[in-house]
Amino acid sequence: MIFSTLEIQDNSPIYEQLEKHIEKAIETGTLIKDSKLPSTREVSSVLKISRNTVMTAYENLESRGIIYSIKGKGSFVKVTTKNNTKPVEIDWQDRMSHYGEVCEAMDILKTEYRYEKGMISFKSIAPEGNLFDIEEFKRAFLDVIALEGEKILNYGYAQGYRELIEYLMHYMKGKGVDCEEKDILITNGFTEGLDILLSTYTKPGDKIICEMPTHHTTLKMMRAYGIEVIGVAMDEQGILVEDLERKIVEHQPKWVYLTPSYQNPTGIVMSGQRRREVYKILCQYEIACIEDGFNEELLYSGSHVMPLISLAGASNHIIYLGSFSKILFPGLRLGWIMADKKCISTLESIKRAKNIHTSFLDQAIFVQYMKSGAFERYLKKVRKYYRDKYLFVVEEINKNIPYKQLCGEGGLHVYIILDDNINERELLEKCYARGVLFMPGDIFTINRGNSSSLRLGFARLEDKEIVKGLRIIGEEIKKYTD
Amino acid sequence: MIFSTLEIQDNSPIYEQLEKHIEKAIETGTLIKDSKLPSTREVSSVLKISRNTVMTAYENLESRGIIYSIKGKGSFVKVTTKNNTKPVEIDWQDRMSHYGEVCEAMDILKTEYRYEKGMISFKSIAPEGNLFDIEEFKRAFLDVIALEGEKILNYGYAQGYRELIEYLMHYMKGKGVDCEEKDILITNGFTEGLDILLSTYTKPGDKIICEMPTHHTTLKMMRAYGIEVIGVAMDEQGILVEDLERKIVEHQPKWVYLTPSYQNPTGIVMSGQRRREVYKILCQYEIACIEDGFNEELLYSGSHVMPLISLAGASNHIIYLGSFSKILFPGLRLGWIMADKKCISTLESIKRAKNIHTSFLDQAIFVQYMKSGAFERYLKKVRKYYRDKYLFVVEEINKNIPYKQLCGEGGLHVYIILDDNINERELLEKCYARGVLFMPGDIFTINRGNSSSLRLGFARLEDKEIVKGLRIIGEEIKKYTD
Repeated sequence: MIFSTLEIQDNSPIYEQLEKHIEKAIETGTLIKDSKLPSTREVSSVLKISRNTVMTAYENLESRGIIYSIKGKGSFVKVTTKNNTKPVEIDWQDRMSHYGEVCEAMDILKTEYRYEKGMISFKSIAPEGNLFDIEEFKRAFLDVIALEGEKILNYGYAQGYRELIEYLMHYMKGKGVDCEEKDILITNGFTEGLDILLSTYTKPGDKIICEMPTHHTTLKMMRAYGIEVIGVAMDEQGILVEDLERKIVEHQPKWVYLTPSYQNPTGIVMSGQRRREVYKILCQYEIACIEDGFNEELLYSGSHVMPLISLAGASNHIIYLGSFSKILFPGLRLGWIMADKKCISTLESIKRAKNIHTSFLDQAIFVQYMKSGAFERYLKKVRKYYRDKYLFVVEEINKNIPYKQLCGEGGLHVYIILDDNINERELLEKCYARGVLFMPGDIFTINRGNSSSLRLGFARLEDKEIVKGLRIIGEEIKKYTD
Repeated sequence: MIFSTLEIQDNSPIYEQLEKHIEKAIETGTLIKDSKLPSTREVSSVLKISRNTVMTAYENLESRGIIYSIKGKGSFVKVTTKNNTKPVEIDWQDRMSHYGEVCEAMDILKTEYRYEKGMISFKSIAPEGNLFDIEEFKRAFLDVIALEGEKILNYGYAQGYRELIEYLMHYMKGKGVDCEEKDILITNGFTEGLDILLSTYTKPGDKIICEMPTHHTTLKMMRAYGIEVIGVAMDEQGILVEDLERKIVEHQPKWVYLTPSYQNPTGIVMSGQRRREVYKILCQYEIACIEDGFNEELLYSGSHVMPLISLAGASNHIIYLGSFSKILFPGLRLGWIMADKKCISTLESIKRAKNIHTSFLDQAIFVQYMKSGAFERYLKKVRKYYRDKYLFVVEEINKNIPYKQLCGEGGLHVYIILDDNINERELLEKCYARGVLFMPGDIFTINRGNSSSLRLGFARLEDKEIVKGLRIIGEEIKKYTD
C-alpha cells in the first residue's frame, strides 16, 4: 500500500503530509495516471489516523487537479508522471528467426485477397455450421459439468482427457488399426499435431516427400522448419508410385507426408489398390510416413478404403494425424496424433513444453457429445448434405467452366485445372473485381510457378451463390478463349 | 464399395463369385480384419442381384470362418491378411531434434517423484478448484450459446475472440498501461505465449537474463531453443539492479525475462521502487523485456505495485505475458501477449502457423464470465482465502522448520532456503518415503548444482495436511542438525 512507507511527523498537519506523499509518489512514478488510491477507510486504518484527515487530503488533491474521484469507485490519479527517459523503440522485424519470417511471409490471410461482405467466396473449406447439433452440444456441456464439476476447469494432463483418448483408440481400431502398441496424444487440431511432429523429429535440411500440389499450411510449416519439400505428382488414383519410389531413392527423404482422402487441394481419394502399393514402397525403403487423416470421415461408411496406418499392423513407421475439426466444431481446435507408445510418450513432453495441454473442458464436452450417438447421426446427415452439394457444384462447373481437368470426389472442395494460357492470378483479380473469390492453385505448390488451377470450397455457400459465382468465373475464363 | 469392381460372369453361380471376390479382397489386403462388409441390401442394390444371393454368399463365408456377423450391426472380416513384409521399426529417439530432446529430458513430470494417492504434496501451485464459481460459469456458457449459436463452434481468428481482446485491453489499461499503440494476442496460456515469443524472436546462441532461481518451464523452453540463460540473483525487493546492469554490459543479452510478482519459485514481489530502477536500466541499455505477469492478480487491489509495462508508456520494449489460468480455470488454457501493434501482427501469423487459434468457445465463455462481475467477486474471495492460507503456512513453518531464509509474500507458494549442509534431494527422498512431496530448488536453477531449498505450494492442501506435511519435513531436516 502506497502509505506503508509514510512515517507521520509532528511538524506539519497530517493531511499535508498525506498530500505530499502522494505527489511524491506520482513524481517518482510509483503512482501513475489512473491508478487507484487506497480508500480513505483503508488509509485511516493503516496509519491509525482519523478518516476525516484522509478525506481532507483527498479533497485538496482533487481541487488542485491532481486526482479525480468516481462515485462509488474511489479516487484515482489524474496527472501523468513526467517521463524523463526517451522512448525505447525495438525493431522487432530485425530480430526475427527464420521460423518467424516464413510463418509471416507465407500467412495467406495476410497475402491473399480478403473476403468482404456480400462477396461469394470459394476460398474457405470450413464446414457449414448450421449442420452442427447445438442442442446436443449444450446437453453434453451440462452433463460434463454435472459429472466433473470444477475438476474439469483445473489443470489436466498433457496427453489428453482419458475418456477422449480411449474413445479415439476405439475409433481407430474401428478403422482397422492394430492399436496394441499404439497410443494417442490430443492436440489443438491437425495443425498443432504437425507442428509437434516436425519440431520434435526434423532438423533443418531434412527432406520430406509430399504429394504436389499439397496443403498450404503443411508447406508453410515445413519451410518454416527449414525442411526441403520434394513433390511427387498424382493421377486420379493418388500419388504416382513409380515417381514416389524414384524420388525416395534419389533424395533419401526422412518422411513421406500423404493425405490419402480428399487430398487438399486436389480432392483426390487415393484408391485402395494405390494405398497398398504406396504402403509397400514405404516398407521396402523403411520410410516414416505422416498420414494426414483429413476429411476421411466423409468417406462412405461402407467404404473399403482404409487409412495407411491400418495397413501397418505392428509396424511403427506411420504416424497418423487425425482431426474431426475439419467437419465438426473447428472452433474447438481438437485433433490427435496416433503413433507407437514410445513416440507418443516423447510427444507428450513436447506438448507439455508448448502449452501444457489442450482445453480439458473442450475435450470433455467433445467426447460426451461423441458418445451420445450424436456423431453417427451427424456423419450420416453431413455425408448426404456435402455429397449433394458436391454433385450440384460439379454439374454447375460442367455447365459454366471450360476446364482441362476437374478433380475431387466429394468432401468440401473441388480442384480445377485450366488451360495453360490462363494465368490464375490474373483470373482471380478479375473475379475479385466482380465479387468472387477462390483459392489460386499456386499457393499449394513449392515454387509458386506458373499455375492455372483453382480450388473451390463449397461447404458454406448457398446453391444460388454457387450458380452465380461459377457463372462469373466461367465468363472470365471464356474471355481468354474467345 | 468393395463390390464396385466386380463384374458378374455367367459361368458360375453368383454367390460363388461374391465369395471369391471377398476372399480375393482379403488376400490382397483391400479388406482387413474387422472391417465391415456392405449390407446385403446395399450389395443387392449396387449389383442388381437378389438379396437372397448375397445372403447365401455371406452365410457360406461365415460357416467357412472367413467372416463373422453381429446381430443388428452387420458382417465383418474375421481373418487377418497374411502380411508378407517384415515389420518396420523406426528408432524415433535417433531422429530427435535438439528441441525435442531438451523438452523430454527436462520434463519434470517424467523425472521427478510422482504423487501417489494419500500423499501430501506441496509440489503443485495449481489453484483450489473448489473456489471456482461453477454456477456462474454454466450461466456464461448458456449465454454464449444463446448469443452466438453454432458460430462459436466454427473457425475463428488467430488473434483471438474480439470481445476478450477488448476486455483485456481495458483490463491492462486499468493497470496503467499506455495501450494506444499496443495490441493483444490470445494464447493457450502463458506457456504458449512464451513459446510463440521465443520461436519468433530468438535464435540459438542468444542470451537472456533471468532472475535466478526462476520458473522451470521458462528454463526448459529457453534451453530447448538453444538460448543461453544468464542468472541474476535477488534480494527481498527483487532482482539485484547492480548485478543486472553488470551482466547486461558483460553479456549483451537479447532479452531480460522477469516475473515481478510472487516470483516463481521464490515468491518475492518486486517492490515499486525496484521496478522503477530495473525499468531505468532496461531503458538505458535499450533492452527488450519479457514480463511474466504470473499471479499479479493476487496482489491487493489497492496496491501501488504496477507491472513494468505500465512504466513503459509509448516505448515498445516490454512484452507482457498474461494469464488468469494460474488462479482461475487453468484447464481452459487461456493467456495473452500484450505488445506493440506491429509485434502482435507478426505473432498472430506465428499463432496461426502453430495451431490456427485458441478455442473460441473457451474464449467466449471466459469473457462472458469476466463481464458478469464474477471475476471481481472471485478475486476478493481468493485473495482472502490464499492470504489466510499463506499466513497459516508461514506460522506452521516457523513452528516446525529450521530454515536459513523464508521467502514469499503470499500467492500460492513459499520458498525456503535451508542450511547448506542439507542436500535437498536426499531430504526429498526421505520425505517421500514418509508420504510428503515438495519441489526441490535445483530444478529452478541453470546448472542444477548443490541446492538446499524447497518450493512449497499450498493452494490445494487442507490445514491439517499442511500441519502434518510441514511437521514431517521439519523432522527430517532436524535429523541433520541433531
